[in-house]
Amino acid sequence: MSVCEKYFPQEPKQPEVKTSSFPGPKSAEEIKSLGKVFDTRPAYFIADYEKSNGNYIADVDGNVFLDVYAQIASIPLGYNNPALIETAKSDKMIRAIVDRPALGNFPGKDSQEIIEDLLKIAPKGQNQIWSGLSGADANELAFKAAFMWYQGQKRQASAFTNEENESVMKNEAPGSPELAILSFQRAFHGRLFASASTTCSKPVHKLDLPAFKWPKAEFPSYKYPLDKYEAENKKEDERCLKIVDDIYTNWSVPIAALLIEPIQSEGGDNHASAEFFQGLRDITLKHGSLLIIDEVQTGVGATGSFWAHEHFNITPAPDMVTFSKKFQSAGYYFHDPKIVPNIAYRQFNTWCGDPARMILAGSIGQEIVKNDLVANAAKVGGYLYEKLEKLADKYPKYIKDLRGKNRATFIAWSFEEGATRNKFLADMKTVGINIGGCAEDSVRLRPTLVFEEKHADILVAGIEKILSGY
Amino acid sequence: MSVCEKYFPQEPKQPEVKTSSFPGPKSAEEIKSLGKVFDTRPAYFIADYEKSNGNYIADVDGNVFLDVYAQIASIPLGYNNPALIETAKSDKMIRAIVDRPALGNFPGKDSQEIIEDLLKIAPKGQNQIWSGLSGADANELAFKAAFMWYQGQKRQASAFTNEENESVMKNEAPGSPELAILSFQRAFHGRLFASASTTCSKPVHKLDLPAFKWPKAEFPSYKYPLDKYEAENKKEDERCLKIVDDIYTNWSVPIAALLIEPIQSEGGDNHASAEFFQGLRDITLKHGSLLIIDEVQTGVGATGSFWAHEHFNITPAPDMVTFSKKFQSAGYYFHDPKIVPNIAYRQFNTWCGDPARMILAGSIGQEIVKNDLVANAAKVGGYLYEKLEKLADKYPKYIKDLRGKNRATFIAWSFEEGATRNKFLADMKTVGINIGGCAEDSVRLRPTLVFEEKHADILVAGIEKILSGY
Repeated sequence: MSVCEKYFPQEPKQPEVKTSSFPGPKSAEEIKSLGKVFDTRPAYFIADYEKSNGNYIADVDGNVFLDVYAQIASIPLGYNNPALIETAKSDKMIRAIVDRPALGNFPGKDSQEIIEDLLKIAPKGQNQIWSGLSGADANELAFKAAFMWYQGQKRQASAFTNEENESVMKNEAPGSPELAILSFQRAFHGRLFASASTTCSKPVHKLDLPAFKWPKAEFPSYKYPLDKYEAENKKEDERCLKIVDDIYTNWSVPIAALLIEPIQSEGGDNHASAEFFQGLRDITLKHGSLLIIDEVQTGVGATGSFWAHEHFNITPAPDMVTFSKKFQSAGYYFHDPKIVPNIAYRQFNTWCGDPARMILAGSIGQEIVKNDLVANAAKVGGYLYEKLEKLADKYPKYIKDLRGKNRATFIAWSFEEGATRNKFLADMKTVGINIGGCAEDSVRLRPTLVFEEKHADILVAGIEKILSGY
Repeated sequence: MSVCEKYFPQEPKQPEVKTSSFPGPKSAEEIKSLGKVFDTRPAYFIADYEKSNGNYIADVDGNVFLDVYAQIASIPLGYNNPALIETAKSDKMIRAIVDRPALGNFPGKDSQEIIEDLLKIAPKGQNQIWSGLSGADANELAFKAAFMWYQGQKRQASAFTNEENESVMKNEAPGSPELAILSFQRAFHGRLFASASTTCSKPVHKLDLPAFKWPKAEFPSYKYPLDKYEAENKKEDERCLKIVDDIYTNWSVPIAALLIEPIQSEGGDNHASAEFFQGLRDITLKHGSLLIIDEVQTGVGATGSFWAHEHFNITPAPDMVTFSKKFQSAGYYFHDPKIVPNIAYRQFNTWCGDPARMILAGSIGQEIVKNDLVANAAKVGGYLYEKLEKLADKYPKYIKDLRGKNRATFIAWSFEEGATRNKFLADMKTVGINIGGCAEDSVRLRPTLVFEEKHADILVAGIEKILSGY
């Protein structure tokens, strides 16, 4: 019996499509009603989470979709996973819900266990943690640590000057210094103000928001298939690394850290080589800057290793690795004690994370390890990739630049035209599949880690059914 | 039987002090051990939440403290409140934990009920909500709405220009405009980058962080007792209002919103009059700017009204009211549909809040209303304030500028010297009381809403015992 069958004996055998429009009439009505008090314009449909099971999400119209979008890549083990339900019912969880601690001031007697459970599945080389609440929050907490580290190096053991203490209260240098985080074009790192200043995938994410004038380098744009264009893509790596190095040398303010996704997800599932990432590591070391890897979307198994950057074997290990989404909890891992600010209360806030979500993350990690779900994702992803390669030969206008070989189920492809991609995403609902896009012209697959070959077959049949009608 | 007795038949009758140092030996050992993986330098002790009950927090050394700090003002109904435990065990909560939705894209069939429960106790005049994850997050989400509204007014129905779409990707104007949020000296609004740019209470909160160069006005500094210095304090209001008006007129970039706490909490429990707040409202209207009230610490009953700014009867109602802490959930309330950005996906992120915490907030609100706990806080606060007034006569060096008359249990006072204040906070542990400070020289009381006269008696006796030794 497969892991998925063990978890979900009641999982539907296939999608059920009950309505001819999406959202269906009941969803549409409830979206309108909820819209009076909450912004529902982005709502796809009103989900019935009670009836959702495993890889299938149900809506209030009775539709049951195979879900390969999974709450924007944020459901690790399927809907209503029984192991997580057990965790949710535990006394530990109930206390974390009811007696939420200010974790920095009043950690509980179970805090160490909770944090160590998160460290059991930490990226190689990382042995400490700072906890937050969302991907954007995790990244901004990492920026704070980076800026404090950067200034601390110059300050060494000396205290803050009066001038620093006074100027910071006016948001002026030297207390509020001019420093930057370097990120990449097409990157997505969140939508708060500092994180939005590093995000560069779509204008809608940040129009009208004041921004820090932080630089953007170019992320490699590879030609596909990769094995055919090895030499060209190597040149592209070199070109992009040179841009990064030049920005470090020439940018008007010092760069405390470089921030990058192992695979640019929101921005189009853009991949880069291990050599490119090692090149970045070398450049950050050369310029005395930190390397922050944003694993918010790529982390927790879906690429065939627990953390996507582990595919690259970056040496020395990144300085910080941020996480959220499928981990349900958020924060950053690190290993160098120097990343801890010199005095208490600098990296601090009321809650310092949410133990309820951290407890869930611990269970998610444990289930993944126990059931070897990273290997499952790799196996199923390989199976799926091969099927999609064949479809790509058949429908080259609609399956272009297939990406994610050897990256398990973290697969994407492009359409020649954005409008057709949009139509495709909508049409897939008619064959009972909930699927998401990225960038302006791409489709991204983000199924759970209990997605199996039988689900892949349904997905591929659904894709072919739609594409054959174009 | 009192509400507290009904909730907590097992609540301790008085504190128990088992150790001679704080943290006790067992706490100290566990803080050191946890410190290997997590920054525990700010930890007071290791709490035993299982043994904590009602107004009492237990630690792993067997100490049981009367808690008038309550997780930095974030425990509304006492530790292990049975009504909240019920909520934590409900199927609705378990689903929210296990099947956390991307609430903007895939709201659930219970989302409307969850959000309407939050609206049942919304500030007067507010009937919509946007949900976030922490106080800092709530404020930054409100800033985003304010900036989008501000630019939208100029743009009217026209689309974003190519120049805006292109410049925003470089973090440059006009897509990333130069706009400001006006806040106050001694304010605290959070520690992310934009929120830290509005925070101005202590350098440690923001040293070494790049900041937006946003202005700070002066918050009134009243003379106490208020009834004796009415004329002086009225002049102080006028002086401060003029500063605000001048900043609006002269600041180098447009100010999209004014952000203020009804009582500056972290910054010293600084109060201002209803006239001052109405003056601010008038100035924001005059300059075409929004008014955002930060109720993160003041909200949810502790001042004797559900929301502290309701004491001022500000007309028209504030444009946005942010919340977090004792509500356990976070976000902002608003009422004007124009605060909703013109197109979908501008105010958006993966989770758009946490339904688990929103469900809890709904229960908290319901329990407060059902048990009339705002009135309870007002009654007990009045009783406590009177006792403290008497102590203030006896110990004028140590209880100076007593604040919070008619503000229920939201009470504070100053010491003549910060060092003595620090010693006092530490010494209070020896009489079994966990108590917090604010600013450099003040003590703030932040008990739960089930704090009763018997607890106030223990608190006052503890304070007197310590002060009589000074």
